[in-house]
Amino acid sequence: MDYQRVFAQAIERLHAEGRYRVFIDILRNKGAFPNARCFAGHNGPKPITVWCSNDYLAMGQHPAVIAAMEEALHDVGAGSGGTRNIGGNTHYHVELEGELADLHGKEAALLFTSGYVSNEATLSTIAKILPGCIIFSDALNHASMIAGIRNSGCEKHVFRHNDVAHLEELLAAAPADAPKLIAFESVYSMDGDVAPIAEICDLADRYNALTYLDEVHAVGMYGARGGGISERDAVAHRLTIIEGTLGKAVGVMGGYIAADRNIVDVIRSYAPGFIFTTSLSPVLVAGALASVKHLKASSEEREAQQAAAAKLKGIFAEANLPTLPSTTHIVPLMIGDPVKAKRISDILLAEYGAYVQPINFPTVPRGTERLRFTPGPAHTEEMMRELADALVEIWDRLEMRLAA
Amino acid sequence: MDYQRVFAQAIERLHAEGRYRVFIDILRNKGAFPNARCFAGHNGPKPITVWCSNDYLAMGQHPAVIAAMEEALHDVGAGSGGTRNIGGNTHYHVELEGELADLHGKEAALLFTSGYVSNEATLSTIAKILPGCIIFSDALNHASMIAGIRNSGCEKHVFRHNDVAHLEELLAAAPADAPKLIAFESVYSMDGDVAPIAEICDLADRYNALTYLDEVHAVGMYGARGGGISERDAVAHRLTIIEGTLGKAVGVMGGYIAADRNIVDVIRSYAPGFIFTTSLSPVLVAGALASVKHLKASSEEREAQQAAAAKLKGIFAEANLPTLPSTTHIVPLMIGDPVKAKRISDILLAEYGAYVQPINFPTVPRGTERLRFTPGPAHTEEMMRELADALVEIWDRLEMRLAA
Ligand SMILES: Cc1ncc(COP(=O)(O)O)c(C=O)c1O
Ligand SMILES: Cc1ncc(COP(=O)(O)O)c(C=O)c1O
Repeated sequence: MDYQRVFAQAIERLHAEGRYRVFIDILRNKGAFPNARCFAGHNGPKPITVWCSNDYLAMGQHPAVIAAMEEALHDVGAGSGGTRNIGGNTHYHVELEGELADLHGKEAALLFTSGYVSNEATLSTIAKILPGCIIFSDALNHASMIAGIRNSGCEKHVFRHNDVAHLEELLAAAPADAPKLIAFESVYSMDGDVAPIAEICDLADRYNALTYLDEVHAVGMYGARGGGISERDAVAHRLTIIEGTLGKAVGVMGGYIAADRNIVDVIRSYAPGFIFTTSLSPVLVAGALASVKHLKASSEEREAQQAAAAKLKGIFAEANLPTLPSTTHIVPLMIGDPVKAKRISDILLAEYGAYVQPINFPTVPRGTERLRFTPGPAHTEEMMRELADALVEIWDRLEMRLAA
Repeated sequence: MDYQRVFAQAIERLHAEGRYRVFIDILRNKGAFPNARCFAGHNGPKPITVWCSNDYLAMGQHPAVIAAMEEALHDVGAGSGGTRNIGGNTHYHVELEGELADLHGKEAALLFTSGYVSNEATLSTIAKILPGCIIFSDALNHASMIAGIRNSGCEKHVFRHNDVAHLEELLAAAPADAPKLIAFESVYSMDGDVAPIAEICDLADRYNALTYLDEVHAVGMYGARGGGISERDAVAHRLTIIEGTLGKAVGVMGGYIAADRNIVDVIRSYAPGFIFTTSLSPVLVAGALASVKHLKASSEEREAQQAAAAKLKGIFAEANLPTLPSTTHIVPLMIGDPVKAKRISDILLAEYGAYVQPINFPTVPRGTERLRFTPGPAHTEEMMRELADALVEIWDRLEMRLAA
């Protein structure tokens, strides 16, 4: 067995497909975001504009968040020093769980070290607790949900993306008395479209299925208090479990679920991914707490972000750039080829100081490689026009066709 | 299907076995650790002494760590705002990976959001990359390694804890040309014993197996620079992959692996648990960087901690309390019953202001429930004598037998 050869070949395959990933080394400038410094070149850090951050509302630099983190740092220190059960349960954790339960109108909430872990741990555990559980999963579900479903060992049926008729077919074909769980997202982050949550809940009622909704890209962004699409559409009470992250619109790091008390207690008590790990640093929890509280009371950031996204979509449309029909804050530009997507991204960074990461397989299906822009409250119309001009110039240089 | 009944029964089972977990709600006092405040009672926070933290060296309150985190907070903000590939690769991440590679004498290192995730993601991915891989796993391996091994879908053989002869039997019985991986820990955190790393590496050489060592409870604690037991025993270069956490002796949060460049690149490129998640907050990374650097240069904390552990072991032995024969910094007191372990812990907290969490199944096997003490540089001899006196009094009250 020649291990080195196998590892080298695995890397070779990525180069051959043009999807070997090079991480761009940056530091954002707090207080001046989307400005950042890039360490890729050789002449020291170079100023760039970030167009692909998931800190959608720039809460990661909000004074209330920074102040709360600084206070926690000085009050209790850097890490929690233990798992939630063994010394790592701080008062901040307890408070934030209360705040998140309230945000989604649920009895309880539970924190995890990330949104990825919350999906993996919850889905794999809940399905194991329900003997014979069948999981119905949207075709475009995130890798973390897929991991949780796979690790549950349950029977799984994949329904076509957002296709309620197909979901119903699959539900109807399953044994009536088997436990069922429908797992889906609200905002699909790579396309920017939204699930028909109410219709899926109707089916769940009809077929006595539990529902699991990933609101990772919607928490903080939609609804009067930032409770996500389920708040905006007034369907939060119909969902069994709502899952979210603290690392995107909230601007910090961590993940959670909200559900009724018993379900949260089951996950808390049985999920290895929750039990056997150092709990979130109290510094992060304090920051997330301040951010969630702020976004419950203020819609200013949400509105400014939506305005920026609408503006960028308009500017791209005028320039005939091939955007996908997103109905949300996400602005994807279809390229359809990994090498070209990387090329465009490289030129934007090197020549225009604009940073937008190419999105390739396995994050999106092969052949649908794209650039994904997430303008925020701080991206100005001028920046957007410069960006569109740069893209048109590059399209021309690479002899690509514009949409019109 | 009555979902509520199934969930309620799952919780009932825990109560019936006496292992339903109640999290103690605390805030540590930075600068005064092991002192903390407990929010369990009704009359506001009450001062307690923490005896079960994994912040072994109190690095979570070290001025250099706090200062570095404060600086990062003000320089770049709260969260990273993206996955490592999409906007979340900061200069701090790159620097810390370099520092960790150097700590273990490896070509490269890779950060994860936790030690749990580093184990799960690396083990499940590496074994998938090697077709037909067989994993040899120590019987007391941590839940996160078990999760990674299970999720790899590979054939797995469990060898008796630290039993090199048994491991050799299993290796010899496997096909000579099959890829093989031996997964084990250096310090086993619930018993405090240490693996025979060199002997296991000898077997790995003989049977052409890769080695994967979890140094989670040893990083920062052993070796002249805190490189773990593998540094102390001068065997780091013989291990294929060394895994560690930033949440215990380092005092912050996060996890990592260190290995040769190709292996790290494979995990970086293929592991869903690494790829599809918001990267560690730069604030945490900055703190961990300061902590790792400090512990490379200073042995003061390690020595003080070892002295405290030796002192507590001595005091417990004098009092005939039934400690396990730990050869490390961990001081486990065997109880052997979940209800009694919880009872003793409750009395210690309520009457003596001493916080030590009872350790029960699934963290340790049923019937080996225990109290696990982790004295640190700041626990004084007086605190230790008071603790031992309290335990002897409780032993007497509960009519339990002392060891003599
Ligand atoms: C839909 C979805 N769910 C879950 C996650 C994971 O959340 P986190 O970044 O907090 O791990 C992500 C992205 O990272 C996501 O896009
Ligand atoms: C042996 C071992 N490995 C891994 C972990 C996980 O590390 P982390 O707490 O950083 O997730 C732990 C404890 O939590 C552990 O005890």
